[in-house]
Amino acid sequence: MKVTPWQVSGKIDYEKLIKDFGLSKIDDKLLERIKSHTKELHFMLKRRVFFAHRDLNWLLDEYEKGNKFFLYTGCGPSGPIHLGHLQTWLFTKWLQDVFDVELWFQFTDDEKFLFKDKSYEEIQRWTYENMLDVIALGFDPKKTKFLIDTKHANILYPEAIKFAKKITFSTVKAAFGFTNENNIGQIFYTSMQAVPAILPSKIKGKNIPCLIPLGVDQDPHFRVARDVYPKLGYLKPAIIHGSFLPPLTGKGKTSSSDNKEANIFTLDSPKEVEIKIKKYAFSGGQDTIEEHRKKGGNPEIDVSFQYLKMLFEPDDIKLEKIEKDYRSGKMLTSELKEYLIKKINAFLSEHQKKREKAKKEIDKFLFKK
Amino acid sequence: MKVTPWQVSGKIDYEKLIKDFGLSKIDDKLLERIKSHTKELHFMLKRRVFFAHRDLNWLLDEYEKGNKFFLYTGCGPSGPIHLGHLQTWLFTKWLQDVFDVELWFQFTDDEKFLFKDKSYEEIQRWTYENMLDVIALGFDPKKTKFLIDTKHANILYPEAIKFAKKITFSTVKAAFGFTNENNIGQIFYTSMQAVPAILPSKIKGKNIPCLIPLGVDQDPHFRVARDVYPKLGYLKPAIIHGSFLPPLTGKGKTSSSDNKEANIFTLDSPKEVEIKIKKYAFSGGQDTIEEHRKKGGNPEIDVSFQYLKMLFEPDDIKLEKIEKDYRSGKMLTSELKEYLIKKINAFLSEHQKKREKAKKEIDKFLFKK
Repeated sequence: MKVTPWQVSGKIDYEKLIKDFGLSKIDDKLLERIKSHTKELHFMLKRRVFFAHRDLNWLLDEYEKGNKFFLYTGCGPSGPIHLGHLQTWLFTKWLQDVFDVELWFQFTDDEKFLFKDKSYEEIQRWTYENMLDVIALGFDPKKTKFLIDTKHANILYPEAIKFAKKITFSTVKAAFGFTNENNIGQIFYTSMQAVPAILPSKIKGKNIPCLIPLGVDQDPHFRVARDVYPKLGYLKPAIIHGSFLPPLTGKGKTSSSDNKEANIFTLDSPKEVEIKIKKYAFSGGQDTIEEHRKKGGNPEIDVSFQYLKMLFEPDDIKLEKIEKDYRSGKMLTSELKEYLIKKINAFLSEHQKKREKAKKEIDKFLFKK
Repeated sequence: MKVTPWQVSGKIDYEKLIKDFGLSKIDDKLLERIKSHTKELHFMLKRRVFFAHRDLNWLLDEYEKGNKFFLYTGCGPSGPIHLGHLQTWLFTKWLQDVFDVELWFQFTDDEKFLFKDKSYEEIQRWTYENMLDVIALGFDPKKTKFLIDTKHANILYPEAIKFAKKITFSTVKAAFGFTNENNIGQIFYTSMQAVPAILPSKIKGKNIPCLIPLGVDQDPHFRVARDVYPKLGYLKPAIIHGSFLPPLTGKGKTSSSDNKEANIFTLDSPKEVEIKIKKYAFSGGQDTIEEHRKKGGNPEIDVSFQYLKMLFEPDDIKLEKIEKDYRSGKMLTSELKEYLIKKINAFLSEHQKKREKAKKEIDKFLFKK
């Protein structure tokens, strides 16, 4: 297993990640506490799609004292948006809605340029394309501010060097596994990702708590930066960690750059979705219908079921029935896949319309000093 | 001897530097060629205060083809301006005047923040103070553009990451002697210094030759970056290298941060200048007047004479007479010092007036996109 912001591979052992990264597990008590504020719990919390955190109890202490937090998350624009991206963002949107808070959204175009074998121009195109997808998810433009690292460098770089001054190469070497052959932009980059967590505090001249929903692979950035925040007079941000939506083939993490065919992208047509699910979605079912009827399928390893559980079937009762029927053999893999295909295509059909409208809305989201 | 952009110590052996850094010596032929364009040669060229170069013949080839260059130099704002700073800038001003070219002037406030144990706010104050000194030297605001790294990060950072992507930690380790304990801002910084040499080309969409007058300690930045310019489709800048004005005590390089008492600053009063020169300026004279009259002084090691030669006595005939008289014993150390004190105070008196006026002129110099 390897989990860094730039590589996720092997079989993911979340218990081990919690231990290695020093995270806290999300337990029932914490969920009850969140529910006392949100009335309903998001299914990604109930199902532990978001499974771990840092300082979430502290954040709720502050919230209960009337000290509202803001949300910070982001997108590394190096390719088309896939379903894996949506998981964190849909959950972030829910947090924004139920807590009625500001969201700062960072597009790390510098990072992707520095880490990918892609041109600056290509990364700029993806930044534009990815912004459309984020807007299409329905974030409130009055409460959402986009930062693009290169476009907002006047605001980000002067703060980033304050973090950079307190982080040595030894530290990033240990946190990210860098070597002497990493380029000096990659080495510096983590300072840029640290900044949005303090920016509203900096601008308003008082400390505002921050909650960062992220995929757990992004945690190392904040493991490094969290030591620095107090040294600069800021609060450590709280973090809530999401697990990885598996690629259709079932192994590792979905990625916009690799396995083009084994991922579903937001601009895929209904036909493409159908073909990909039917062809690639790893099945937990049996080899023949007869065998399946007799032995039943295994939803734990079935990617279609995981997609429903993690992203496309918010209804617990429906999901439970599917799980039961699939496990018993009453529901076939082909039926499960059909169900998922309909769910995905219904979502994408709406999403694509909203994404088209988003082309006129970008300016409303870009942060202006 | 140690010569890096952040440390100059030991006895400076310029012949060794030329060899170690791979520079070309400025020879009579090159001086003749420059003179064919400038009519008069600046005394700092004749006296080899500027002693080495990279690609200056190529730059003149281009110039002779009608392809004008621009100048790029800078200032690391971490303290008050001393006489050592003035050397490069006065020479740069002459180049601007005689070749009638644009000057891009970079204030590396990020660098100084990252390398000095000083606060961000203090570095910002020095940036303002140092800009006044630069303006006071009389640069033409119509042809001079100031870049402040943090204030112009929107322009500089997106280009800097293009350099950074092509420079590894191994490379900066070798060029600057960095270790794993250097901070990640220091490691990235050289990319920011590389950018102004391409900025006019970037903005105008065509390659414009660049000449960088600098103190030779700054050469390692460009030794690293010069390999990268062609990879990004730009020309390698030409460089002209200045030697170090010695501190009054005679060893190493003047510096605004160290040896406060052994350096003369632009805001020193006439009395302070007098006391510093009389008390600290290392003398090449003999211990007693009798001995001096008999054996004479040694101008090569006499700091007052070096200050006249390098900075304050442009008149060759006068300098030659002083040298002769001092060497013969006709001129005493006290007389030499008096002569220098008058020269410095005449300069500073004018400079301080112009510096006061400069407070209203900063905006005219700041680059606006």
